[in-house]
Formats: sequence, structure tokens, C-alpha cells
Amino acid sequence: MRLSHSFVPTLKETPSEAQIASHRLMLRAGLVRQTSAGIYAWLPVGFRVLKNIERIVREEQNAAGAQEILMPTIQPAELWRESGRYDGYGKEMLRIVDRHDRDMLYGPTNEEVVTDLFRQSVKSYRELPQILYHIQWKFRDEVRPRFGVMRGREFLMKDGYSFDLDYAGAVVSYRKMMLTYMRTFQRMGLKAIPMEAESGPIGGDLSHEFIILAPTGESQVFYDAAFEEIDYLSQAAGGFSHDNATDLERFFKEMTTHYAATDEKHDATKWAQVDAGRRREGRGIEVGHIFYFGTQYSKPMGATVAGPDGKPIIPEMGSYGIGVSRLVGAVIEASHDSAGIIWPDSLAPFKAAILNLRLGDAACDALCEALYAKLGSAALYDDREERAGAKFADADLMGHPWQIIVGPRGAAAGKVELKRRATGERLELSPEDALARIGA
Amino acid sequence: MRLSHSFVPTLKETPSEAQIASHRLMLRAGLVRQTSAGIYAWLPVGFRVLKNIERIVREEQNAAGAQEILMPTIQPAELWRESGRYDGYGKEMLRIVDRHDRDMLYGPTNEEVVTDLFRQSVKSYRELPQILYHIQWKFRDEVRPRFGVMRGREFLMKDGYSFDLDYAGAVVSYRKMMLTYMRTFQRMGLKAIPMEAESGPIGGDLSHEFIILAPTGESQVFYDAAFEEIDYLSQAAGGFSHDNATDLERFFKEMTTHYAATDEKHDATKWAQVDAGRRREGRGIEVGHIFYFGTQYSKPMGATVAGPDGKPIIPEMGSYGIGVSRLVGAVIEASHDSAGIIWPDSLAPFKAAILNLRLGDAACDALCEALYAKLGSAALYDDREERAGAKFADADLMGHPWQIIVGPRGAAAGKVELKRRATGERLELSPEDALARIGA
Repeated sequence: MRLSHSFVPTLKETPSEAQIASHRLMLRAGLVRQTSAGIYAWLPVGFRVLKNIERIVREEQNAAGAQEILMPTIQPAELWRESGRYDGYGKEMLRIVDRHDRDMLYGPTNEEVVTDLFRQSVKSYRELPQILYHIQWKFRDEVRPRFGVMRGREFLMKDGYSFDLDYAGAVVSYRKMMLTYMRTFQRMGLKAIPMEAESGPIGGDLSHEFIILAPTGESQVFYDAAFEEIDYLSQAAGGFSHDNATDLERFFKEMTTHYAATDEKHDATKWAQVDAGRRREGRGIEVGHIFYFGTQYSKPMGATVAGPDGKPIIPEMGSYGIGVSRLVGAVIEASHDSAGIIWPDSLAPFKAAILNLRLGDAACDALCEALYAKLGSAALYDDREERAGAKFADADLMGHPWQIIVGPRGAAAGKVELKRRATGERLELSPEDALARIGA
Repeated sequence: MRLSHSFVPTLKETPSEAQIASHRLMLRAGLVRQTSAGIYAWLPVGFRVLKNIERIVREEQNAAGAQEILMPTIQPAELWRESGRYDGYGKEMLRIVDRHDRDMLYGPTNEEVVTDLFRQSVKSYRELPQILYHIQWKFRDEVRPRFGVMRGREFLMKDGYSFDLDYAGAVVSYRKMMLTYMRTFQRMGLKAIPMEAESGPIGGDLSHEFIILAPTGESQVFYDAAFEEIDYLSQAAGGFSHDNATDLERFFKEMTTHYAATDEKHDATKWAQVDAGRRREGRGIEVGHIFYFGTQYSKPMGATVAGPDGKPIIPEMGSYGIGVSRLVGAVIEASHDSAGIIWPDSLAPFKAAILNLRLGDAACDALCEALYAKLGSAALYDDREERAGAKFADADLMGHPWQIIVGPRGAAAGKVELKRRATGERLELSPEDALARIGA
């Protein structure tokens, strides 16, 4: 992308309405703009990050055998009356009356719709287990939307639903999704810790939130130092197969042996049993939640399949959410400095920025064009008529993993400067070596 | 995908509510299910087609230099009051009141939001021209939704908006999008004819609908036989560059020389001038619309950029729509037979189906597994415990371009049968030759 003709409205000033780093940086780097309270438009650079997160989530879901569907945003109220949630849901539900006076709503979640699809379509025990998921916009009419996309009203979420014949099967699906989530967050460069969470009316221990550590997190969290140790999480995520129930059991044990809880579920007695030197406290941001809820929806909605003996079986269900748009903010909270965003390689909107420090200088222009031709859509070419200082500042602000800096003296000598955003390291290299170094 | 454990609810009976072929076939082949009147959930197979259409639209938009963004579904009424459209829009607009009693709406289109984003962000003439687009769900509260996804209430649309400094620039953007649209539809295997359309209050000749021919189309259309001639449209789309204004002018002339109009704009005098032997009449389905509207939104909404002399310039705008979800139905209307759908290769949910005619036969199972391992996500493996007849019927219904049929006699001899859905042609081949033939 050529920055001179791109829709990338970076800001020099810090917007006064933004209270936390990710919100400030997303506005300043031109990732999003608010269109109504808690509702955002994603501009080209922010859109690319959102799509990168979506892609990783999708690839990992598909690898686990989950099937992607797409349920609509607008749902009929009658399904929520069947499940018994319509009246109790409160003002966070955006209720709508259509032109024929039918009660509709903008889906805040999809248990009812997916259970309805299931009961219309799946008839035999032979077809189970299945996991269905979608990545779709949802709406919760927060009374006080804040923190940018971290607590917006319209937000993008991956929500998945498992259908199993019995509790044992549901446990396997649950563990499979836990492993899939660990891999998903790992690929985003995030250290997400599964923490025991409220399990609702069903009870039991099959409810976990995935929390990433950040000083601005909404929850106080308590965890064993094991989760901080290098490679603990990555080894756990790498060494198990999600097609093998024994592996899944070992993985689940591994993830739940060490203490980890948010303040909601914090247990002082258990905490006291953790070695004092290994107790860690901090703030955390929830980026995912997995939850077993049995027949809570399938039973009242009459979803059944015929068993081997012809008798109806009520499927056991679980739900699995990842906050896709929220993750954009959460990643920034976990990875930024005073100059701006520091994107993990897997999520960066562009692998590299090309900074032309002297537009109009023949050698600079030619070298930049050659680099841009080589990198294509992986590069943002800063070809604006701006001072070098403004280009440096915007590149740091936008957080590209690499900056290729082309000035007149270097260009004349056939050299560029390559800067790694995360470390600040700078090297003078030939253009070929710079491209090789960034893996292009 | 293994069909035995997939969410693909094919139907043997024709659903009574479906009046046209595409609606019937989409329900029967398990592509979609209705969740409310005119609102559909996309099941795994339908979702894949939708994503294929979206991908082609996106690739061609990006190739033309348009920038992808994502505007929210819920918009503030105040922007529509600024443009003057709020009160006049009528009951098709889904109006919503949020918990703070603010008037909101589910966007039926995005001129207001994109103009608002532009005026906040773009300050100088140097940054123009720009084309912004997004692919997002929209809502129109049709009084009588019908024809499945062809005239639904919640629908997926690509809408793009161009911003130019003057009329001449807007014409270039318009022609660029016309060329891009021709290429987009071509890649989908569609013959889309650009037809002069209503141009609204601005007048002029810069408004075209893209119409594909299908007997169930909603409009009567009149066109010169040139548009039916082999390669006319493909040559036109292939031979021009969208980075060259002269090329674009020649292309536009080529596309608008021959008569083509829907009944709305049909002109009997001009029609009489078409050689009688070259007059064609038929029914058509609108799948795209491009439209120049000047300063209709930028002016009342106060969107300006500073010109070279510092004086404000009101940008000239155009809008460019493609009905992404509608296209799934339109393609089926244009490409099916009595047995089912016939997918163009570029849109097919799976390149091939593997039909195991004798599940449990060691040679059949081994051969099918080997083919499936090779084809991966490009194949749908029919591993259900079903009669051969049911598998043939479902494969024809679902319209995979290729069927690889594995029966016990052939498997024992190391042979499969390869069927091409579009022609019915069948060949007995080794598995390797079959894979080579389908390009895997």
C-alpha cells in the first residue's frame, strides 16, 4: 500500500476520550474510528489486523474438525422465548420490532439459533459428535461502552457449539477446544492462561476463561509461576493431538494442575497451598471462554437425535467463544511501548514499512520502488511528502515488525537501514540482505 | 469434509415454500436454512460458496487499488438526518432505539457513514483519488421477502465508494469499477451485461446495472446480440488496463456501444435502430450496480479537502455495489439442471466429491481414504451408510464439478469412475489419472 493515497489517518495528538493505551493507539495509528458510542469502523490498517486474527482462529478451528457456518445477526425473539432467556436478558439485548410488528433482536450470542438449526437438521446419533462455529458481528447494548474495541457494543466474535451424545463425549469436545484455544493464542504471540471460571447453573469444573496478562486488564488474577515459565504453555500446546482422547486428558490435567483464577473464583485456601515464592498476582484481559452447559438449551428446545435403539437422545452441548475484535485491543495492551504498537509478526498489518526519507531523490525513489515491487502487499510504502521525523514516528506508532529506511546517502551507496521494531536494533545492509533478513 | 459427520442436511423432498429453482436447490442441497422470514443461516457448504464469491470480489477490488475497510452494521440516525434521507427512506429501513433512546438503524447502504469517515480523515487534495469498499451484512425490511437469498432481508453486499477531485476523475473511477466488475463476474463463470440504469437526481449516463440472464429474472431485458457472442465480454474484460485512462475510455465505449437496457430504461426509438436479427429479449437478474452521484452526500455533509490553493474542494463521489449473497442464488439460476446445481469451478464448495459405493469393503475404503488424503479440503468424502443411488443423487444435487466414484469392482482392479457434472461425461481411470484430470 502506498501511504500517500491510502486511508490511514494517523493522529499526532492523543484523543482525549481514550483512557487506555490500546484505545489511544488504535485511534492514533488510524486503525479505527468511532461512528457511534461503542461502535467502530475498521479502517484499512485495522481491518488487516482483524482479518489476521480471524484467519488464525479459523485455521485452528478447522484443524480441530469444527465446521464453519454463518448465522444471521438478526434473530427472532420466539427462539429466546423457547429457551426462557428472552425476558431475563435485560437491556444489553438490542430489541427490534420489524415492519410486521414481530419481535426481533440483534444476537448477543447464538445458543438458541444453533440449537434450532441442529434440531431441524440432525436426526441420528451416527452424525455426532459435531462442532459448529461462526465468526459474526454481535451486539450488546452496554450501558457505558468504553476502552475502544475492548468493550464496544458491536463486536466480532467467534462462537462455537459442540453437540455430543453423552457427558463423556462433551468432555472430549471441551478439552479439544481448550487445546485449540491454546494453539490459537500462541500463534498470535499471546500468553493466554486458562483460568477456572463461573460455570453457571450446571456447576462442575468445565468452564475456563483465557486470560492474557496486561496491567490495564479488567480482572485481578492469581496464578502459579508455572504459567510464566518459558515454554510451559507452548510445550503444552504443541505436544498433544486433538484427535486422541488420552492426549486430551493429559493436556487438560497439565493445564489445570497449577493454580490460576480470576478474582471471581479466587479461593484463599487453595492459594495458600501454592508455594509462596510461586504466587503471582496481576491484571488480566479475558479473550476467550469455554463452557460446558449440558442440555440447558437442547432440552427445553426439544432437540434430540435417534439413538441406536431408536429412542431419542438429548445432545450434551458446550459453547466456545473468542473475542476477535476485542483481541486487537488486547494484543496492543500486551505489546506496546511509549512510541506505539509492537505487532507480533503473525498479526501485523504489514510485515514491513518502507520509509523513503527523500522523496524525489532519484536513487531513493528507485530503491524504494524496487523494494515495494518485491514486497507487494506485505509492505506499506511511506511515499508521503513528509519530514523524516514524521515518517519515523508514524512507523513506530503503527508498529510494523520491520522498517526499511532509505535515505539519500545510503541509497547512493546501495545500502538501506533495517530496523526491528520490537528491539530497536538497526543494521545497515544491502537491499537484498535486508529482504532476506525479514524473510521476503 | 467427511459427509457422515458433517452438517449438510440435504432434503429429498422439494420444500413447498420455494418458488424458484435456486431457492429450492439451496434448501435441498443443505446450503442454507431460514431462521426468520427473509433471514438465512449459511450452513457449511453454502458458507464455502459465499466465501468463494467474497474472495473473488475482494481480489478484484484490491487489484483495482480499492481499499478494504469494514463499517459497522448499526448506524446513528443523525448521519441520515444530515444527508436528508432519514425521513424519506420508508419502512425498508430497520429503525432501532437503543437503551439511551438514541435513534439508530441497521444500515441498508453506507453513503452517509463513508462520507463521515472521509470528512474526519482526509484533508488534502494530494490524498485523492481514493476508493474505499467493504463487504458487510445489510438489512432491508422487505414487505414480502421471497426467492430465498435473492430477495432476503439480511444480505451480504460489497459496497464501494470513490472520492475524486473533479468530474473527470470521477469518470475514471467509474470506468475502472466497470472494468473490475466485468472481470469479477467473468471469474465466477457469469455472463453479466452492463445495462444503462436510472441515474437518480444527478442524471447523466453514469449508472449501470450488471445483469445476468436467467429465465426467472425479475426484470425484462433488451440487448444486442453482440453481448451473446462468444468471447465478446471476456475479450473486453481482458484487453484493457485499469491503470490507464485511455484504456478505460476505450473499454467504456466498447461496453456502451451496443444496446442493452432493462425495461425501466428501455427506449423504443433506439431499439428500432438495432438490426432486427440482432434484437434479443429475455429475463435478467441484477447482481451489481455502479452509480455516479457527484456531490449529493459530500455537499450537505460538508466533506471537503483543501485544494492546491488552500481553497476547499467538495469531492465527487460514486458508489459501486455487488450483491454477494444474492449471487449465490443468481449463479444457481444461471447454472442448474433437473438433477441439481452445476457449480462453476471457481465457486464450487468442493472441487470433487468422493463417492464410496461400498462402505466397509476394504479396497473401496482404502482407495477412498487415499484419495481423500490427497485432496484434503478440496473434497467432500461421502462416507455415509447410504445406498449408491442416494449418493449419486446427492452429488448431482450439490453440483460438485467432479465426482470420483469408487465401487468394489473398480477398486479391486485399481480403477475409479470420474464424472464431470456439467457434461455428464464419465471415464474409467486409475486414481492417479483421475486426480491429474481434475488438476489435483
